[in-house]
Amino acid sequence: MTADALLPAEAAPRALRRARDAVVPATRAFLARLDDTSAAIAAYHLGWTDAAGAPIRNGGGKAVRPALATLSAQAAGAPAQVGIPGAVAVELVHNFSLVHDDVMDGDTERRHRPTVWAVWGSTSAILTGDALLALAQEVLLDSTSPHRAAAARLLAEATRHLIRGQVQDVAFERREDVTVAECLEMVSGKTGALLSASAAIGAVLAGATPEVVDALSTFGAQLGIAFQLVDDLLGIWGDPEVTGKPVFSDLRSHKKSLPVTYALTHGGRPGRELAAWLASADPTGPDPTGVARAAELIDAAGGRDWAAAEAHRRISAATHALASVPLLSGPREELIAIAHFIVAREA
Amino acid sequence: MTADALLPAEAAPRALRRARDAVVPATRAFLARLDDTSAAIAAYHLGWTDAAGAPIRNGGGKAVRPALATLSAQAAGAPAQVGIPGAVAVELVHNFSLVHDDVMDGDTERRHRPTVWAVWGSTSAILTGDALLALAQEVLLDSTSPHRAAAARLLAEATRHLIRGQVQDVAFERREDVTVAECLEMVSGKTGALLSASAAIGAVLAGATPEVVDALSTFGAQLGIAFQLVDDLLGIWGDPEVTGKPVFSDLRSHKKSLPVTYALTHGGRPGRELAAWLASADPTGPDPTGVARAAELIDAAGGRDWAAAEAHRRISAATHALASVPLLSGPREELIAIAHFIVAREA
Repeated sequence: MTADALLPAEAAPRALRRARDAVVPATRAFLARLDDTSAAIAAYHLGWTDAAGAPIRNGGGKAVRPALATLSAQAAGAPAQVGIPGAVAVELVHNFSLVHDDVMDGDTERRHRPTVWAVWGSTSAILTGDALLALAQEVLLDSTSPHRAAAARLLAEATRHLIRGQVQDVAFERREDVTVAECLEMVSGKTGALLSASAAIGAVLAGATPEVVDALSTFGAQLGIAFQLVDDLLGIWGDPEVTGKPVFSDLRSHKKSLPVTYALTHGGRPGRELAAWLASADPTGPDPTGVARAAELIDAAGGRDWAAAEAHRRISAATHALASVPLLSGPREELIAIAHFIVAREA
Repeated sequence: MTADALLPAEAAPRALRRARDAVVPATRAFLARLDDTSAAIAAYHLGWTDAAGAPIRNGGGKAVRPALATLSAQAAGAPAQVGIPGAVAVELVHNFSLVHDDVMDGDTERRHRPTVWAVWGSTSAILTGDALLALAQEVLLDSTSPHRAAAARLLAEATRHLIRGQVQDVAFERREDVTVAECLEMVSGKTGALLSASAAIGAVLAGATPEVVDALSTFGAQLGIAFQLVDDLLGIWGDPEVTGKPVFSDLRSHKKSLPVTYALTHGGRPGRELAAWLASADPTGPDPTGVARAAELIDAAGGRDWAAAEAHRRISAATHALASVPLLSGPREELIAIAHFIVAREA
């Protein structure tokens, strides 16, 4: 019997749903502080409304970060409510980074819908992202927790690491010699930093010990790397119907994701053929034969197996971190269920 | 004898120089936390280095906001040192907004030098701005003041108002019927909010009473409007040699600044002729005769006199606010000297 079998299959979706139900009204109340334009654009980006402002039922993302933040408070022995400002704040920072990323990458579609800049232009997208980042701090600093300053500091530092990761990602696009270690470091910033903060911020707001905060932080950091590995696998082999992205989307844009980097640096002949394809093929062209062949090469070079195995290793490390400190067992089991859910997801 | 004559002419430049000397090393220490790329771009933008990273002696801006922040702490009876985290933070937020503004406006030059996006591209400019905004919060939350959370909250709220002002500014560009009152409200956000926070944040860090904080905040808010009025006048009639901007620069870009808005809405025949010119002339074309004529029309319509008088009225209101609360007289006189310096400046 594996660890997975001990967890009811519904535990993660239920925890995510619960977090979303709690965090959406709280987020809505804070968005009302923004100017009408930024608030409307944010509501669209969050999946709550269409571009004309009409409400969408059951819209919105998976709420992984809010779920981690509220469970983090609960695991430290506090009510979920104590983690809500953290949950709202990490979700705002996550969405700030998505809105700006789409401008920088020139991506016109996200979650089957046009991106913010594609609808309103890049000026509005930059301003809306800025507003979400500033608002995230306000949410935390308005909380009644005596530990709000520590929570705000944690989030500001995580934002700095997130940006560092994005800067590295941009720099790597122009380099041919990126190692797997460098790529993992970039991912630790770009994806790991905010998931780490999400998993720790509830405990910080609850006044947990440094040991508990550190363990939850490590859990989130490892989970973040697993999350990105799965994202990278889905970016190549994900079902377009489920992911909402074109087939082989990351290969079309020549993205040097983790499986690609592994294949290029460990992949022998298929790796060298992949490098030649990346150097020659036009990233903007359609070339469906070329990208299918590139996907085969990554697989043959071991990039696909390595990424899947590495994701599982990171989930083990994440789970292991939680075993070292006293945490309430119910919330801890739910955190672990979310970790397993993340590696098993299809979109 | 006017109030101006009571102030030694050197008081403001001396206070600004002192603030810059204190804030530059502190800012440098915090910028070292950023990734190397963002730190280098920020050092260039702040005027400390050239685009290749070589140091520039005596570079950098006027340090109005840092001077307000340190004097704010001193006026409330604390050492200047208490205001330094506030001074660094407001300067970082100011520069975040400049870097993003230049991307959004497509401006290729600032302070006689190419803008960040013009040198490194808009992706790096967006990321550097994001990094400066996040870092500003970290600076405050790392301070040893027991009031750091209140100071961080003040700055986050000011950033929200600043962004609201920028959103209004963008919206006004597409409207023909903006009133002077709407324009003043936009300026209260875009320029007033951060100057208001700058003038109050030192007192907040010093643990001053709400009355003292409110008075300093009003001082900064009124000063901000005066600052923008003078900026708008310099944008039309400033000496290109001193401002570093082309002659009539704001008219070339058809910017609906305060003097223009006044002329359009109060200016009778010259105002109507100005409206016709704005509706017909190509904003991207050179047309030196047209812009010179537009400047004459604004003057004839009373826009120039009104803006200059309004700036003085705002400085009076700012000074008046400081008279209502107990403040240390030396720092208060320096705050007033800076206010007068701002309306008298030529760049």
